[in-house]
Amino acid sequence: MKPLIDDIRRNPLFWLLALVPVVLLAQTAWPESHTLLFALSVLAIVPLAALLSRATESVASRTGDMIGGLLNATLGNLTELVIALTALRAGQYVLVKASIAGAIITNTLFMLGASFLIGGLKYHVQEYNRNTARLQASLLFLATIAILVPSMLAKADEAATNTGLMGSLSVALSVLLIVAYGLGLLFSLRTHRELFGTVEQPDEGHGPEWPLALALTTLAVVTLFVALVSEVFVESVQQAAVTLGMTPAFVGVIIVALVGAAAEMVSAFSAAAKNRLDLSVGIALGSAAQIALFVAPVLVLVSYLIGPKPMDLQFWGGAVTMMLISTMTASLVTNAGRSAWFGGALIVAVYVVFAMTLYLLPPRT
Amino acid sequence: MKPLIDDIRRNPLFWLLALVPVVLLAQTAWPESHTLLFALSVLAIVPLAALLSRATESVASRTGDMIGGLLNATLGNLTELVIALTALRAGQYVLVKASIAGAIITNTLFMLGASFLIGGLKYHVQEYNRNTARLQASLLFLATIAILVPSMLAKADEAATNTGLMGSLSVALSVLLIVAYGLGLLFSLRTHRELFGTVEQPDEGHGPEWPLALALTTLAVVTLFVALVSEVFVESVQQAAVTLGMTPAFVGVIIVALVGAAAEMVSAFSAAAKNRLDLSVGIALGSAAQIALFVAPVLVLVSYLIGPKPMDLQFWGGAVTMMLISTMTASLVTNAGRSAWFGGALIVAVYVVFAMTLYLLPPRT
Amino acid sequence: MKPLIDDIRRNPLFWLLALVPVVLLAQTAWPESHTLLFALSVLAIVPLAALLSRATESVASRTGDMIGGLLNATLGNLTELVIALTALRAGQYVLVKASIAGAIITNTLFMLGASFLIGGLKYHVQEYNRNTARLQASLLFLATIAILVPSMLAKADEAATNTGLMGSLSVALSVLLIVAYGLGLLFSLRTHRELFGTVEQPDEGHGPEWPLALALTTLAVVTLFVALVSEVFVESVQQAAVTLGMTPAFVGVIIVALVGAAAEMVSAFSAAAKNRLDLSVGIALGSAAQIALFVAPVLVLVSYLIGPKPMDLQFWGGAVTMMLISTMTASLVTNAGRSAWFGGALIVAVYVVFAMTLYLLPPRT
Repeated sequence: MKPLIDDIRRNPLFWLLALVPVVLLAQTAWPESHTLLFALSVLAIVPLAALLSRATESVASRTGDMIGGLLNATLGNLTELVIALTALRAGQYVLVKASIAGAIITNTLFMLGASFLIGGLKYHVQEYNRNTARLQASLLFLATIAILVPSMLAKADEAATNTGLMGSLSVALSVLLIVAYGLGLLFSLRTHRELFGTVEQPDEGHGPEWPLALALTTLAVVTLFVALVSEVFVESVQQAAVTLGMTPAFVGVIIVALVGAAAEMVSAFSAAAKNRLDLSVGIALGSAAQIALFVAPVLVLVSYLIGPKPMDLQFWGGAVTMMLISTMTASLVTNAGRSAWFGGALIVAVYVVFAMTLYLLPPRT
Repeated sequence: MKPLIDDIRRNPLFWLLALVPVVLLAQTAWPESHTLLFALSVLAIVPLAALLSRATESVASRTGDMIGGLLNATLGNLTELVIALTALRAGQYVLVKASIAGAIITNTLFMLGASFLIGGLKYHVQEYNRNTARLQASLLFLATIAILVPSMLAKADEAATNTGLMGSLSVALSVLLIVAYGLGLLFSLRTHRELFGTVEQPDEGHGPEWPLALALTTLAVVTLFVALVSEVFVESVQQAAVTLGMTPAFVGVIIVALVGAAAEMVSAFSAAAKNRLDLSVGIALGSAAQIALFVAPVLVLVSYLIGPKPMDLQFWGGAVTMMLISTMTASLVTNAGRSAWFGGALIVAVYVVFAMTLYLLPPRT
Repeated sequence: MKPLIDDIRRNPLFWLLALVPVVLLAQTAWPESHTLLFALSVLAIVPLAALLSRATESVASRTGDMIGGLLNATLGNLTELVIALTALRAGQYVLVKASIAGAIITNTLFMLGASFLIGGLKYHVQEYNRNTARLQASLLFLATIAILVPSMLAKADEAATNTGLMGSLSVALSVLLIVAYGLGLLFSLRTHRELFGTVEQPDEGHGPEWPLALALTTLAVVTLFVALVSEVFVESVQQAAVTLGMTPAFVGVIIVALVGAAAEMVSAFSAAAKNRLDLSVGIALGSAAQIALFVAPVLVLVSYLIGPKPMDLQFWGGAVTMMLISTMTASLVTNAGRSAWFGGALIVAVYVVFAMTLYLLPPRT
């Protein structure tokens, strides 16, 4: 337990863990105070997410490069997965989809752009490995197309949506995306690993890696707590949004995504500030690709087991457009392999355009 | 005749030529067996297409670089042209448009992607001449825009479609595309030919070039047979699709395109396996550009002479989206001038997304 | 006054200035001859625009690099601004938006493409500074997204458009665009100016710079005349379009934009013919970015002060598509940093596709 306690003591972020019991108590005491429960659960998820990625990294670092890479690639977005599973079980498909779209948009635009901006304010020009960025951007492009094409064609023929064909198509596309994600790992971790440089583990600030037993136990226990807090979050979010005057789309796409990715952002930004932009780009785009090609398809497949009814891959038009623009922006920007502050500012500005639009215009979901 | 017979003996593909008389007899004997006629005609077109491209190459190689390039550039997709003309005369505009869209999509995604994949499984990294890819991708981009813009604007104002303005616009755009195609040939074969390396004739496997007289006679006779078999194909395809449980869009975009391009695929794939990726990229994108900027516009212009009514360049939304994505994918991918197996796998995955969507969701045509 | 008179004597374009009083007299004499007034005002605006950019350059060259750059960046499209302000005051929002879209499309496609073509007909291959092109194309990309996203989402929910939310969003987006434009100037003129080479003042053909007093006086007086002539133009354009058989969209997007940019085109084309493609690209894309990120947002903000009702940033679908395609084309094309005649021909062909479509198909505005 000592390394865990050391870590918690060292990082002020972890002090928010105190809110976890508070949330659970508050839910029993004031089940109708949606805004309070929403705020508390948001704040409680952030340190849990940080703890989860810390534990995942520790397990990964103890299990060798290949398995470690696989673990990071599958459990790296465990928080997002647990939140989405909770929403799925509650039948909140709109929230699930909004949070998937939001995670992709937030990681490719806000996390990447702010990394460039933060790095660019300290360093005149920064360089990074283009191959990593290209691989992840290509995977994202495939995922966006897999979501775009059926969403577009479905609009053209409402009948298809009713007859379960969209369900079959979503399952087929999900399997395709997971296979593509697996091939991407095979490519970057095995057959062509020399192209992807050495994106080392982030070792900044936190102490030595934990022993395997501690890491695994933490992983299990924290996942359970994330699930419990997520339940509070999912139940309160819609009501809280109404009270706070925010559209549900804004909450799903912007708030949930920022909360879920908070821990990774800390890593990406501090890497950028240390001129290790390779790492920042890897975290931002890798995480987006993972959500699009692993988390989202897994949710579709799992929805056949746990949801009140199956979930499909059909997103509303605005979400598809924003995902497509995010992917294209990431593609165009990272093509250069160099960055300066202005590029980061522009990417963040695209994100702000999305956020402002979602805040003011309620989309048809 | 000897070189022709030698070629036929050497290449097992040509043995399928035996099916040509079978198809024509079957049509008289069982005119209502649509599925049988469909299957037979598909199988009979493949060797005819191979023979046609063999003859075209022979004529081209006998007539010098400039005229040879021109011949290849205009007759290279003679099979697709003849099938489309047959469908046009039968008034099957939806099939014509689906086969145009399908040829563009199949060549830019499946033929290019599978070439990268096949080459990449044998060679770690392959390089090719970017200039060829860029030229063809730019031409395709122009053609896609020429189809996208009127299709989009027309949706906004149904009235225009009825008043023949779409017809005038289609004729004007067709002329523009043919002029652009001609300028592209002038650029690559004449003013800036040094940029495009020496994409030699594929000389793998087949024997010496045929004498001019034999080549020309073969060209004429085989074209006639393609026309006859196409007629069987066009008459049977819709009924067969229903029987086989396929949507008409899937048949037009996927099946017809794969059949029409079978001969070129053999060339492109065997070039990739021999590390001559220049040739594969040239065949795949060159053929797509030729369909988009030469075959399609010629069909529009010819429709004023032979069709029951003129054909326009307005495609249904899904086809335009897929063409746009195919063109963008080809643009982004070939920008690097290098490829490995994973890039090929991703491009093929995009194609599979399209195929699955068309198979399951019947688009509004 | 002498340098001014010298300039007017030297450049035959300025002889058209004689039409300025003719227009103003004609308006009083034959207020109903819309086609005549339209033709006269178009011809009178061209030399006034040329005089305006001449005066702006003179002021800029007298005030040092930084302030000069700022002046050029804000007053460079004064003609377009004055025309649009006149149309705004007359409540002609459709014309204002068409002219904004048209200026972006015309500058990125026609001015850039024709520069490449003109330069390419004299020089085999031309090179230019990619960084300038990239900066401007990125700014344009941001602006296009800022227009695309609300236009798309608004379609999905008509209610939002009615409740003034689109107004608030347009104001917020306008401020964002102006800030981004300012940051772009900071980046290119101050923090990273070494990346942008020395795009010198165009000094071809015209005499020595004017004294500051003369330049400022000319600026003020000519702006006034542009305003007066614009009023005639705005009043006559719709009627004249009907008489000439042109759609209002064609007039707004193509005619007005060509008239407004005539002076800059002369500079861009003559620079291309002198192998100074840096300058041509800077003028074409810089001007487009300025319209999108400075003129358009300023018009939205100013509309709250002078228009009959506020103007928003929502464009009709066709305009958004055309702006997006223009921006993407500029992005893809200038990525190479090299050009030959064929690239220019293709960009011009995309412009011709737009022009033909607008001429024949009246879009829903």
